[in-house]
Amino acid sequence: MTKVKVFVTLKESVLDPQGAAVQGSLAKMGYGEVADVRIGKYLELTISETTRDIDSVVKEMCEKLLANTVIEDYRFEVEEEN
Amino acid sequence: MTKVKVFVTLKESVLDPQGAAVQGSLAKMGYGEVADVRIGKYLELTISETTRDIDSVVKEMCEKLLANTVIEDYRFEVEEEN
Repeated sequence: MTKVKVFVTLKESVLDPQGAAVQGSLAKMGYGEVADVRIGKYLELTISETTRDIDSVVKEMCEKLLANTVIEDYRFEVEEEN
Repeated sequence: MTKVKVFVTLKESVLDPQGAAVQGSLAKMGYGEVADVRIGKYLELTISETTRDIDSVVKEMCEKLLANTVIEDYRFEVEEEN
């Protein structure tokens, strides 16, 4: 089994209203030092043994389903396990 | 400015229907080797200079707003910047 961590984030140029809402709430709660909040997705994939190259398979999955590459960036880390 | 990366994930014991849906879609798309998908949140906080201790402030924010500690776990990494 291989564990892969995928991070999907909005591109810098894309507005993040959810992040802005969280930042506003934090400010009201007394955490005015938080200047900016950006919210993304964090996925943990467990991949069973395969003859395919993990890196290229994960890249394909990100491009096709996990990230919307028009407005989102992604990166991933492959972790060996067992 | 300090950058903090926060990872909020569902606890192991909590069902993740969103992850199950993504895993099902991946299987239909020909990625049957993906045995499990868990989906969480990934937040990037930018924190301006403060006299408070960053670690304890971030912990407080997670407990109070960013994570629902009944069903979610969180961890964070503090990165110095500029």
